[in-house]
Amino acid sequence: MSFSARHIGPSAAEQRRMLEAVGYGSLDELMDAAIPEVIRWHDGLDLPPAASEEETLAELRALASRNTVAVSMIGLGYYGTHTPAVIRRNVLENPAWYTAYTPYQPEISQGRLEALLNFQTMVADLTGLTTANASMLDEATAAAEAMTLARRASKSTSQVYVVDADALPQTVDVIRTRAEPLGLSVLVLDLDSEPLPEQFFGLHLQYPGTSGAVRDHAALIDAAHAAGALVTVAADLLALTLLRPPGEIGADIAAGTTQRFGVPMGFGGPHAGYLVVRAGLERMLPGRLVGVSRDADGAPAYRLALQTREQHIRREKATSNICTAQVLLAVMASMYAVYHGPEGLRAIASRVADRAATLAAGLRAGGVTLASDDFFDTVTAVVPGRASDVVAAAAARGVNLRLVSADAVGIACDETTTPADLAEVWAAFGVEPVDPVTASVPLPRTSEYLSHPVFHSHHSETAMLRYLRRLADKDYALDRGMIPLGSCTMKLNATTEMEPVTWPEFANVHPFAPADQAAGYTELISQLEGWLAEVTGYDAVSVQPNAGSQGELAGLLAIRAYHLSRGDTARDVCLIPSSAHGTNAASAVMAGMRVVVVACDADGNVDLVDLERKISDVGESLAAVMVTYPSTHGVYETGIASLCAKVHDAGGQVYVDGANLNALVGYAKPGRFGADVSHLNLHKTFCIPHGGGGPGVGPVAVRAHLAPFLPASGSAAGSVSAAPFGSAGILPIPWAYLRMMGPDGLMRATGAAVLAANYVAARLGEHYPVLYAGSKGLVAHECILDLRPLAKATGVTVDDVAKRLVDYGFHAPTMSFPVAGTLMVEPTESEDLAELDRFCDAMIAIRAEIDTVASWGADNPLANAPHTASMVTADEWTHPYPRSVAAYPSAADRAAKYWPPVRRIDGAFGDRNLVCACPPVDSYA
Amino acid sequence: MSFSARHIGPSAAEQRRMLEAVGYGSLDELMDAAIPEVIRWHDGLDLPPAASEEETLAELRALASRNTVAVSMIGLGYYGTHTPAVIRRNVLENPAWYTAYTPYQPEISQGRLEALLNFQTMVADLTGLTTANASMLDEATAAAEAMTLARRASKSTSQVYVVDADALPQTVDVIRTRAEPLGLSVLVLDLDSEPLPEQFFGLHLQYPGTSGAVRDHAALIDAAHAAGALVTVAADLLALTLLRPPGEIGADIAAGTTQRFGVPMGFGGPHAGYLVVRAGLERMLPGRLVGVSRDADGAPAYRLALQTREQHIRREKATSNICTAQVLLAVMASMYAVYHGPEGLRAIASRVADRAATLAAGLRAGGVTLASDDFFDTVTAVVPGRASDVVAAAAARGVNLRLVSADAVGIACDETTTPADLAEVWAAFGVEPVDPVTASVPLPRTSEYLSHPVFHSHHSETAMLRYLRRLADKDYALDRGMIPLGSCTMKLNATTEMEPVTWPEFANVHPFAPADQAAGYTELISQLEGWLAEVTGYDAVSVQPNAGSQGELAGLLAIRAYHLSRGDTARDVCLIPSSAHGTNAASAVMAGMRVVVVACDADGNVDLVDLERKISDVGESLAAVMVTYPSTHGVYETGIASLCAKVHDAGGQVYVDGANLNALVGYAKPGRFGADVSHLNLHKTFCIPHGGGGPGVGPVAVRAHLAPFLPASGSAAGSVSAAPFGSAGILPIPWAYLRMMGPDGLMRATGAAVLAANYVAARLGEHYPVLYAGSKGLVAHECILDLRPLAKATGVTVDDVAKRLVDYGFHAPTMSFPVAGTLMVEPTESEDLAELDRFCDAMIAIRAEIDTVASWGADNPLANAPHTASMVTADEWTHPYPRSVAAYPSAADRAAKYWPPVRRIDGAFGDRNLVCACPPVDSYA
Repeated sequence: MSFSARHIGPSAAEQRRMLEAVGYGSLDELMDAAIPEVIRWHDGLDLPPAASEEETLAELRALASRNTVAVSMIGLGYYGTHTPAVIRRNVLENPAWYTAYTPYQPEISQGRLEALLNFQTMVADLTGLTTANASMLDEATAAAEAMTLARRASKSTSQVYVVDADALPQTVDVIRTRAEPLGLSVLVLDLDSEPLPEQFFGLHLQYPGTSGAVRDHAALIDAAHAAGALVTVAADLLALTLLRPPGEIGADIAAGTTQRFGVPMGFGGPHAGYLVVRAGLERMLPGRLVGVSRDADGAPAYRLALQTREQHIRREKATSNICTAQVLLAVMASMYAVYHGPEGLRAIASRVADRAATLAAGLRAGGVTLASDDFFDTVTAVVPGRASDVVAAAAARGVNLRLVSADAVGIACDETTTPADLAEVWAAFGVEPVDPVTASVPLPRTSEYLSHPVFHSHHSETAMLRYLRRLADKDYALDRGMIPLGSCTMKLNATTEMEPVTWPEFANVHPFAPADQAAGYTELISQLEGWLAEVTGYDAVSVQPNAGSQGELAGLLAIRAYHLSRGDTARDVCLIPSSAHGTNAASAVMAGMRVVVVACDADGNVDLVDLERKISDVGESLAAVMVTYPSTHGVYETGIASLCAKVHDAGGQVYVDGANLNALVGYAKPGRFGADVSHLNLHKTFCIPHGGGGPGVGPVAVRAHLAPFLPASGSAAGSVSAAPFGSAGILPIPWAYLRMMGPDGLMRATGAAVLAANYVAARLGEHYPVLYAGSKGLVAHECILDLRPLAKATGVTVDDVAKRLVDYGFHAPTMSFPVAGTLMVEPTESEDLAELDRFCDAMIAIRAEIDTVASWGADNPLANAPHTASMVTADEWTHPYPRSVAAYPSAADRAAKYWPPVRRIDGAFGDRNLVCACPPVDSYA
Repeated sequence: MSFSARHIGPSAAEQRRMLEAVGYGSLDELMDAAIPEVIRWHDGLDLPPAASEEETLAELRALASRNTVAVSMIGLGYYGTHTPAVIRRNVLENPAWYTAYTPYQPEISQGRLEALLNFQTMVADLTGLTTANASMLDEATAAAEAMTLARRASKSTSQVYVVDADALPQTVDVIRTRAEPLGLSVLVLDLDSEPLPEQFFGLHLQYPGTSGAVRDHAALIDAAHAAGALVTVAADLLALTLLRPPGEIGADIAAGTTQRFGVPMGFGGPHAGYLVVRAGLERMLPGRLVGVSRDADGAPAYRLALQTREQHIRREKATSNICTAQVLLAVMASMYAVYHGPEGLRAIASRVADRAATLAAGLRAGGVTLASDDFFDTVTAVVPGRASDVVAAAAARGVNLRLVSADAVGIACDETTTPADLAEVWAAFGVEPVDPVTASVPLPRTSEYLSHPVFHSHHSETAMLRYLRRLADKDYALDRGMIPLGSCTMKLNATTEMEPVTWPEFANVHPFAPADQAAGYTELISQLEGWLAEVTGYDAVSVQPNAGSQGELAGLLAIRAYHLSRGDTARDVCLIPSSAHGTNAASAVMAGMRVVVVACDADGNVDLVDLERKISDVGESLAAVMVTYPSTHGVYETGIASLCAKVHDAGGQVYVDGANLNALVGYAKPGRFGADVSHLNLHKTFCIPHGGGGPGVGPVAVRAHLAPFLPASGSAAGSVSAAPFGSAGILPIPWAYLRMMGPDGLMRATGAAVLAANYVAARLGEHYPVLYAGSKGLVAHECILDLRPLAKATGVTVDDVAKRLVDYGFHAPTMSFPVAGTLMVEPTESEDLAELDRFCDAMIAIRAEIDTVASWGADNPLANAPHTASMVTADEWTHPYPRSVAAYPSAADRAAKYWPPVRRIDGAFGDRNLVCACPPVDSYA
């Protein structure tokens, strides 16, 4: 059977039955009716024909074999690390973890929320600060977010941000990219010799420095505070197990990466960045934040805290456009700490420090000068005029060092560094080996960390395995059943797509390894970018943005740079329809644009009359329009071509948000129907798993005139992510998907997704009004069920229905987006007819329950949902409906019931009583 | 942290607390007290020092890289196959499947029992016979079991077994090995030209033949039946999707392998063999048999059927010594059929047949003669004098063919064969390519198969993934909690041990590949055999036996052959203590020995007085004594050295069953304290996972004088398994275990296991009498809890306690072995103190419940255990104890309760109403 037949849930026979229900004779007829001819692409996709799963694995093995796994001593924020095998297999290779969605439904996400709380606790403990978020995209973007946080929190009126010259170069690059459109100026200073300016709102320090130097920053921090500035310390968490943490000398913020806590380098990512703040700043933190609250029984329960800060609520008033974290990687890093515990981490760090000290002793004994004598794991060797030779000699011995300059070489030790590696380095320098020495680190840490029992209870592999299973069992992921999340496209993440991710040849390559060592990666990335360009109809693609939000920003920055390059300095308005995802507006503001909202008409489409009015209103200020296609209402708007033309005519650029690209693949190409730029969500259309809330990957695709402005390391446009190719380590996933589906399979998938949405709409339409549809009454790849009339009549809320679906064994659809009081259902092409029908049956049964609510009163199964096993097995039962209705509303579930571990969670309570680290064990008593 | 610290559950601090409870100051003191000095080995183990997990993986990668994965067209019962990635990752690489135990506790094993029922249905359907068992060790041993089944079922008095000359050579080898000690004579006949004898009890046919020829066996079968003989057809299941199945022409038995249903070749195994019989023979089937019965609510439920046939019940009257199946591999093969369905399998087979037909057409067109024109996937090319040259030419092109003789070459196509492979073969023969042709198979099948819905419902990857998860979630395995099975040693199966198993370089090597292509395997096996010899104190080891039962047989056959080689033809008595595992007696009978039972004394030890008496009684007939050490009572018997001496003095050999070797490693060596031979259970002491009831691996280890009689392919001793190195594919597991533990870690593990057992005995002794102990009141690595007095006083049975433990979140200990009415607890070294205490707390709480039983009467939580969620959430509750006592007897479980999917199963009902294939779906209504 072809891979596409495995990927697409409904068989041919099932699709015929579904077409019958929708009223079409064939998929072609349906798609002809659904998609406006004005955008329709009829020439297919010029992609290689589908390969089988085995052929694809063979091709990927061939690509992998063209990468060289050398000993990496480059440093620069990426380190060799030993991923504990039990974590690799049971998290990174386990669909129960990687197919999970962002924990918006916290009752069915307690496992990964607990893991993230462990992560936050780990970060806060190690940095000596108070409140960490649930991870950032990488160190560089975390540092950029720290900058804007400092700007918001600082009382200084200065727009100057001071950055330590010993900061990571890629961090400086991203900070510059992000500062420029906001009107902030970045001042890079050698703080050993150059004084701080009088006025500045923030200071970014690297600890230890990129050079390896460990400096006492206490005085600098005091000086910054005196100037009203906030201080961010970009700190290495492994170093902090031995070094005095930033929180103990007054740092306001710390940022960094947790990569070396067991997460493979992966040619740059994905890894979990971190961001942590002192008390008082927690409500200003961007990104996801897990907090403790309580459920309907008063039991402790976890959920995302302070969501009202986020872009989807605050839109252009948001302070960040971040939608995702790096949950899967944060889980891994947190479990690395859980598995090793504080003693284990300290032992690892000590071993690393001893290696560095030994390395340094050998170099010194051989007459090599070191740039600093205070270091943890990295030394910079001063070898005037010889640096290139030393680096080349080491490379020939299988060891990658960092060429700092013509006169200096950087050498970073890590957990994987062996005495044999040191011998090779010494040989490359031409010095003699010395005996191992014990390190004496500068600024030693005296405070304890990771004292919570979770970091002391799972140190045997058996205990760790069971902890991982226990947490996974609390959660609902795609491996249990459908997750019909509108706009999120939770489709199959095929095993064959996933397997190469953990092969050593993909996992263990440093992002700044010599190009000839990454030939497999560069070939794969180049092919992938080409295929994505073909699918979208654009001319150039950059895979650097490591989340959709970063892709959006990159696309808007390209538009901005384009206008500026033409001297169009006044074009700073971005038109955004009222139906747009909040991220769009947030991104536009981050790109230095002003947002002007365009109304939607009664059918939910962009109101072209209002568009014309707004275009006319903003005149020469028009920079861009930003629309999603199909719309966030799940409709193929027929006015899209006209919209593009109007904006172009007024000198604007057209940004099509690629969130819904899966409804277009093979049938329409944004780059050919009028758009200038899109970002894609590889974690939606192209099968990168959601990982419980990240990693996402958000390449940006542009027409030729914007190509010079694509983000890239070292380019004029600058970088939007730390690594040159973003989350390169998971790009084999979309590569494999495209390779196995082939042009025909991709079109079949699009058709099956549209068919499934229309099938659900057809079955549920008589029970719940379907809110919007295209001209022929068809939806695109998702449909909106309107619950507002029912809510008005019965008091049953969207929340009640969503939680009741848990009792029926489902993850809820998207709630109240894009329209409050509705559910948006996106079944995707991967759900077979049996599962689609199980979902429709559940929704219909719930509709009948809604009709019965009056007879039950306030104490009804919808209001009480979800029901836990604990509740339903209680000795006392006082509810007016029987236990069987609570526990097994669907008979099909008796055989394999998913029990949520907690009852409905009171989010507001947690926001009022913010707790974002592991609570004491006795709080569960 | 060292691997041994990950493998051993209790930390040093925990071990100190446990030692205190047991009353010893250190592990050394405890071990000195526990182990009799007379057997104590004080010189440690001469093994390489422990390597880290990462070093071990690196060494294994280096070994793997020395294997060559060529295109395999050798055939001989082993074929290239595409393991569906979703099955590889979610079964073979998933601890929920591979750490499960044999489903003796069926209520918590419904998932794998369902998978095995699918397997049985698949085998029965494809062969056209009625009742298949749950898998055999391999095709050759299945064929040998078929022979003995035929002998039991045939009315003929002949001892002659006729074997098709076109049978697999390794099958003939194993049949001969097994026939000889039983006094059966094997007559290999070319049935195309040689007539059947007048008298014979059975006939073994290969279908298609090893040469590839497909013959119509109908007349032969009729003739055999006329002679009163039974007929076994060794049939290829993939071929049977296209060819008339044996059941339709009257075959009584079919045997074979399911390897090519998605199970990697693994240099010979493990794979699931199969055995299936016509109606009327089902109660004579050896091995495990899954059947449908009903639970206490009358719901359908699966469990092992007809267990009273088995060796552990019937001992020397048993008809087979088989204790295990190849469950993990049978699950994979069954899921391959579930995933492909009948149409998918037929399509695969047709593609294979087309390849073979195309290959043949090319050869014929090039003037090469074929031995037969009727074939499915394999052709034999007649190339007088050129065969070696052709095979060499193909090998040079990366393709392995079979050298049949100087004049003939065998070429087998399979699912992985590509047109490019055919081109290489043609080139090796020096013939020109031809266009593809469509095969027209001889004896086409007309009947349907695999019509059950399970083979039609899980064809998308999403559906398959969820089916696998749903089944796994029904089961309790080591990834949930402790499985304290006495004598079964359910300890950690570390991920690092498991990962290499699925690397292509280990997975995809044919067992008869040229030796230079398996250099990594032979090196690994040679090292492993050496290390096992060092651990046991023996001189030579063979890893060929692919289960403990086969190791036992091999060891006893070596003793038999040794005596015969010395002219000691009368030595045929095997002394076996009454406490021995039933398999020992069954194996002795299979090795042509008579069993004489030796009594045990009141302390459970071998009664040395009775031993002397029996030695004297049997006189010159004494062949061997067969004892387990430590004994099956979990005690280090002090009389072992004396026992060995007495038997040796009487001319006998000493067989020490290695089942409990994990209590000796590093502290005593059977080969040095008096034994001549042992088999080891690599799936107990050396961490191969139990896989839900297989694979097991049972190497045999001997002193030098027995070394010439070790089983080996092509040796005088013959083979006990089909493949030269048995289940070679999983030997990286014990290799990695030994490599990572090192000599010190192995000793620490032994100590920790003995400490854990004594800790449990100390904590539980006041609640349940501990039945046997050594001289200082210490047990070895397990302890027996006597429930008989309680049962007598209260009516609560061992079964009740075992099932109630499920409510507490545990797998029961071993029930009623070696003493009826007891529980034998083996905690192993891998359980940490928290889990040991959780278990002890549960047992103590159950003890209190037993005391309360009188107040509840017959309707009590022990009698009703285990409680399902369905039962405890029922609208009506009529029991005298509250629901909370039923559902959550332990508060600790509220957070992560395991719910059994069925209530207690009525095994006897199922045995009376034997159903061993998937029941119709409406039976669940």
